[in-house]
Amino acid sequence: MKIDISFKDPSKDYFVYIDELKELEFDSSVAIVTNQRVGGLWLKDILPKIKSKNLHIISIPDGEEYKSFETLNYILEQLFIAKLDRKSTLISFGGGVVSDLTGFAASIYQRGISFINIPTTLLAQVDASVGGKTGINTKFGKNLIGSFYQPKAVYCESKYLQTLPNREFSAGVAEAIKMAIMFDRNFFQYFANHNLHKKEELAFVIKKCVELKADIVSKDEKESGIRSVLNYGHTFAHVIENETKYLKFLHGEAVSIGMNMANLLALKLGYLKEEEYKRIKDILIKFNLPVYYKIKDKELFYESFFLDKKSSNSKVKFILPNSIGNFIIKDDIDRDMVISVLSEFA
Amino acid sequence: MKIDISFKDPSKDYFVYIDELKELEFDSSVAIVTNQRVGGLWLKDILPKIKSKNLHIISIPDGEEYKSFETLNYILEQLFIAKLDRKSTLISFGGGVVSDLTGFAASIYQRGISFINIPTTLLAQVDASVGGKTGINTKFGKNLIGSFYQPKAVYCESKYLQTLPNREFSAGVAEAIKMAIMFDRNFFQYFANHNLHKKEELAFVIKKCVELKADIVSKDEKESGIRSVLNYGHTFAHVIENETKYLKFLHGEAVSIGMNMANLLALKLGYLKEEEYKRIKDILIKFNLPVYYKIKDKELFYESFFLDKKSSNSKVKFILPNSIGNFIIKDDIDRDMVISVLSEFA
Repeated sequence: MKIDISFKDPSKDYFVYIDELKELEFDSSVAIVTNQRVGGLWLKDILPKIKSKNLHIISIPDGEEYKSFETLNYILEQLFIAKLDRKSTLISFGGGVVSDLTGFAASIYQRGISFINIPTTLLAQVDASVGGKTGINTKFGKNLIGSFYQPKAVYCESKYLQTLPNREFSAGVAEAIKMAIMFDRNFFQYFANHNLHKKEELAFVIKKCVELKADIVSKDEKESGIRSVLNYGHTFAHVIENETKYLKFLHGEAVSIGMNMANLLALKLGYLKEEEYKRIKDILIKFNLPVYYKIKDKELFYESFFLDKKSSNSKVKFILPNSIGNFIIKDDIDRDMVISVLSEFA
Repeated sequence: MKIDISFKDPSKDYFVYIDELKELEFDSSVAIVTNQRVGGLWLKDILPKIKSKNLHIISIPDGEEYKSFETLNYILEQLFIAKLDRKSTLISFGGGVVSDLTGFAASIYQRGISFINIPTTLLAQVDASVGGKTGINTKFGKNLIGSFYQPKAVYCESKYLQTLPNREFSAGVAEAIKMAIMFDRNFFQYFANHNLHKKEELAFVIKKCVELKADIVSKDEKESGIRSVLNYGHTFAHVIENETKYLKFLHGEAVSIGMNMANLLALKLGYLKEEEYKRIKDILIKFNLPVYYKIKDKELFYESFFLDKKSSNSKVKFILPNSIGNFIIKDDIDRDMVISVLSEFA
């Protein structure tokens, strides 16, 4: 199955293919960027499928802490050494860290070369596969340097998820649940009633997420408006990730906690019913996702919102569920109200 | 006067204003990136014209050798420290080094913020002001990392050229002559008959170059076709600049030599008449531009073409004048023929 991702500028259009990867043919040089772990598990599967003039493998260390300027530089240097030119293609083969770095490298190598994404985690398949966000972390925060750069194609293969650790699988489910809470009440119910370890049911979730996200991204490629809704849970999650130096939680886990925090805020403000608040929390817990994080200093936590790139002009924008399946964007919530939510995690 | 620069995607359209800069007003934060020398000479002129919520000055060292990852990182860090957000604007105030760095920083800071270019050298006004090329140099070559990123507006002020050293003025004229040789025989004649130290005649040259370049860039934003004609002289120039470590020649000077080399090739291949070859050389010399560079190792010089990003698939593309005012693109010129041209500089 394939999903058409379309833009105002049709030269950017591409397809996301689900379980359709048979052969990739290129008439120029190709470099695959992967990480040590994914490479060891799955390069043997992908390599025979790639026909190209020259094929280079670039392997980077596994982990969010390597989504850095140093790794970006390492990848770029490898591309120069491999003499990739403007007609070459860069393939990302890994999770979000690999695709964020590889997409960014593709966007700035010789002012932009072709980029194909083969995401190997559920999170990357349901989330990073659509949208064209690339980037790296700096000491000032997460994803603060990067670009919007669309791939030529994305291939989501469910078989690569077989070797995914349970925690990472659940972290991917968190972003899928996020989409459902924001946009589709029926889809939310799917998570309660289906077994995502069945191939077809998982493929449905991936397809649904890609479609929902594609719809948003085609309306607002550069996140100047509605696309910010996808940051539901993320305002809190980024602070949690920074405080824990990306070591304690996977991104999806931090988002799970962040959604629960946002939901509590929505509950207090009357946008979410007590019953709905609990239903969401129960689904997150069902998938072994964390919903609680002990905030050491709630004032400091609050201040950290203002460095986050999604805020602007000293206002913090909160994306909240307005009952399950709808959203509301608020940038005028009282500091005291937010602090009172944070207090329940302190 | 103003020139409309338009693209297939109209959200990228902008104006180049010539001698029109009166006041710039912003409702968000602004950072000006300049270099030490330009800042000392002209910040006193520009600063009273900028109305913004917050204004930050970032000053970088003057020189091509600072068009590096280190300076890019320095600029990005300063933006974080100044807490610029996604709605902020970055203004480049300097020559091509400053605008290439500033445009690149603007394109990747928080995945892209607004960029305004106020070029203060003739080269930057006639060349870098249109086209959206940004970038930095690496040890592998010039401009090999960068992006295509269009400014929101460009302001060319001829008064900033008053303090330009003569050599830099001539280097700018070289790129203007380049445009004339490629596209406009009458415009070429203008350089023989006019005094570019008169304000109106200089403004005409700037306007003409901006128009010619805008026409090319609007047809081929990402240099996949005709835009490569603007690289006339550059294939040779990049090797000269690399061999001399950017220390001996200004970019326009290297282009002047590169054009003369290309012209000799065109002469030998019969695309240029002896008389035309000499006319071009005489005009370059009239503006005190160098036309000769002693090649130490012509084999090495030839090999260097293949690392240059404009080449692909081990073919070197030569942009040659097909008489004055027209061009021809050749990628099948015999190695021996090229070597015989290089021999005349050895």
